[in-house]
Formats: sequence, structure tokens, C-alpha cells
Amino acid sequence: MLTLGVLASGSGSNFQSIVNNIESGYLNARVAVLISDKPDAYAIERAKKHNIEHLVLNPKDFPDKDAYYSHIAKELKRRGVELVILAGFMRVVGKALIDEYRNRIMNIHPALLPSFPGLHGQKQAADYSVKISGCTVHFVDEGMDTGPIIIQAAVPAYHDDTEETLGKRILKQEHKIFPYAIKLYSEGKITLESRKVVISGDREDFAVANPPIDELKT
Amino acid sequence: MLTLGVLASGSGSNFQSIVNNIESGYLNARVAVLISDKPDAYAIERAKKHNIEHLVLNPKDFPDKDAYYSHIAKELKRRGVELVILAGFMRVVGKALIDEYRNRIMNIHPALLPSFPGLHGQKQAADYSVKISGCTVHFVDEGMDTGPIIIQAAVPAYHDDTEETLGKRILKQEHKIFPYAIKLYSEGKITLESRKVVISGDREDFAVANPPIDELKT
Repeated sequence: MLTLGVLASGSGSNFQSIVNNIESGYLNARVAVLISDKPDAYAIERAKKHNIEHLVLNPKDFPDKDAYYSHIAKELKRRGVELVILAGFMRVVGKALIDEYRNRIMNIHPALLPSFPGLHGQKQAADYSVKISGCTVHFVDEGMDTGPIIIQAAVPAYHDDTEETLGKRILKQEHKIFPYAIKLYSEGKITLESRKVVISGDREDFAVANPPIDELKT
Repeated sequence: MLTLGVLASGSGSNFQSIVNNIESGYLNARVAVLISDKPDAYAIERAKKHNIEHLVLNPKDFPDKDAYYSHIAKELKRRGVELVILAGFMRVVGKALIDEYRNRIMNIHPALLPSFPGLHGQKQAADYSVKISGCTVHFVDEGMDTGPIIIQAAVPAYHDDTEETLGKRILKQEHKIFPYAIKLYSEGKITLESRKVVISGDREDFAVANPPIDELKT
């Protein structure tokens, strides 16, 4: 059974989907601890509800970024955390944590990276007016959403989409691909060759377009 | 019937797919002229084969970029060209042509813009090791592949893809979405609201992931 540590700053709906998939038996894993940088994050309520230990660690209580992330790494390690999950953790993770959990930290981003990194990927995509957007689970490196990509999902985007309507369409897929990426990891199906993520298992060809074009389906 | 002018620098396989779709009756259009900046472009052979007028216009024969693109605009206008098609035209189009054909120049790019603009989008995507890539038809503005997006198609990308294998998978979709974008334009179904491309017609929801996840299909 894989031991997870989850970092979240906000609502924690991705945290919830992971917990749900553990409780349903889809994921052979347990969440050892939820760590939030914000005392009022709703993710904390979710942790309480599911009897998951939670910690509030405020960066302001630490002398610097290195001390903060060293402390987080220590808290994760002492609970035997094997894989760290960033579920809406709104900070660029410090090197102290990345070094300790190299290629064992997963993040989800609401865009088809490398398009629209950073904050508000959904708004960026809606403003740019792409026709296809999506979400990305990736390993975390020192950059801003630049780490090796594990899985991506694509959805259509429309000219009259707002951050909210597009975000909702994307979020639905986030709740599926994040647990799936953790499942693949827990089953030892993910390996890394430099920055290429190798996934064992079936492949499935597809082609989708927006606007839809019948000919593409043939 | 829509009058097209095509600019190409190389093999011209997208030019060929447009010609095929005209000859099959799918597209209610004609190609008035093919213009190449390279005398040895294979696209010229394709034009000859289909009895399409062709011009070789070498930028070196013009005093500057402005003179070059003014001349191209003149050649297109005198043939009544309504929509300009960049089919593998390997130059950043000059302002003289863009001003004359504002929002009436379409380009195809082998990536899901704004990811991987510029040269070798397929290689950039393979090297980055994304899990989903694709192609984009967009109107041309002064930037490098930055204009309003008309249609996008997405395909899977694999860790062992090369520029060639991924490029082939993408090209298959290019040959479909480019004629389709022209068809939508010729039918008056495309309008612009600032940089948002509004397309009248049906919408079709989809969600695809790579690696594939069964739950996404439900």
C-alpha cells in the first residue's frame, strides 16, 4: 500500500477525489497526512471528515523558504510518505522538498502544459481562446510547472467559455487523471528516462477536433 | 466559390489535401495561384500536375521584406484571391501582406498552440515529452504563430515518439482540419470577436486522455 502525503492550499477537491478513490478501493493507498499552508483551507475540513491527520504550516512561521520546505520534508518522512501530492498547493515548492522527494512529487495543472503554466491556467486558456485545453499531471521539478509529464487529458474549449465554465470542464477530468496517475505509480508502471515518462500498458490511438469534424472519426 | 492563394516552401502536402478536397467537391473553392519562395519546392510540381498557376518569388530578388510582401499581396489581389493559405510557408509573413489580408490569412501549425510555436513543433513536443499534442489552424497576425485559433485537433504522443512518428500522426489530422477550416470560412461560419474565433454549428463534448483511462469515456 502506497503512503501519500497531500499538500493543499484551498478547497481540495482533488484531495477529495483521491480520498474517494482510496475508499472505493480503486487506489491501493492511504493518505498519512494533509498539510496546508493556509489555516482556513477547506481541504482541512475534508481531512477531518475522513479522519486524516492534518497540519497547518504557515511559511511566515519559518525563517526562510528552505527552512519551511525542510520542515515539510521532515514531517512527510517521519510518517513514511512515499509519494507527495500537490492538490491545489499554490506555491512553487522549495528545493529542500524537491531534493528529498525527487520524482516523487506529483502536481496537477489545469492546462495542457507547456501551455499556460502558473496561476489561472483556465483563465489564460479562455482569454487566449484556444479550441482545446485540458489538464496535466506531472512530476515537480524546480521550474514553474515544467516537470516530466505523466498524463494529460484534453477537452474542448469554446469562444464563450469563461474561466468558470472551462474550469469546470477541466476539473471533471482532473478528478479522474490524478487518481489514475497515482494508481499507475502505485503499481510500478511509471518509470523515467531523463524527462520522458514511460508508462507500461496499453496504448489507444485517438484524434479529436474542436470544432468537431466528422471525417476525423473515421 | 472562394478564391484561394496558397503560399508554400516545401513538399506542400497540405496544399495537396486542399486541392484533393476541392476536386472531390468537399470544398467549394479554387486555387488561383501557388506562390513559393523556393524554386525547388515540391509544391510546384503538385501545382503543375493540377494545372494551377504557380509563381516563384525569391525574397533575395527584392530590396527588403516590405517590398517582397507588397509584391505578393499585389499578385494575390490581381487574381482575386479572397483567402490566403500558408501551407508550410517557412517565413514569418511581413506586415505588408498581413495588412492587406487582415484575418484572411490562415496558417497550420503542427502543435497545440500556444505550445511549441516556431520551427519544428513536432520535435519540440517529442523532446518535451508531452502526452497529448496536435495541430492548430489559426489566422495569421504579426507574431510567431500567435494569431486567433480557428480549429485544433489533438492526438496522443508517446515517450518513444520521434519527430517523425509524432509528426506523421499529427500530419494526418492537419490534412483534415485545414480543409475543414477553409470550408467553414467559405460557408460564412467563422466570425471574429477580438481574438476569439466564433464558429456557428454544433458542439460536441469530448474528453480523451493519454495514457488511456477507461473511466474518462463514461
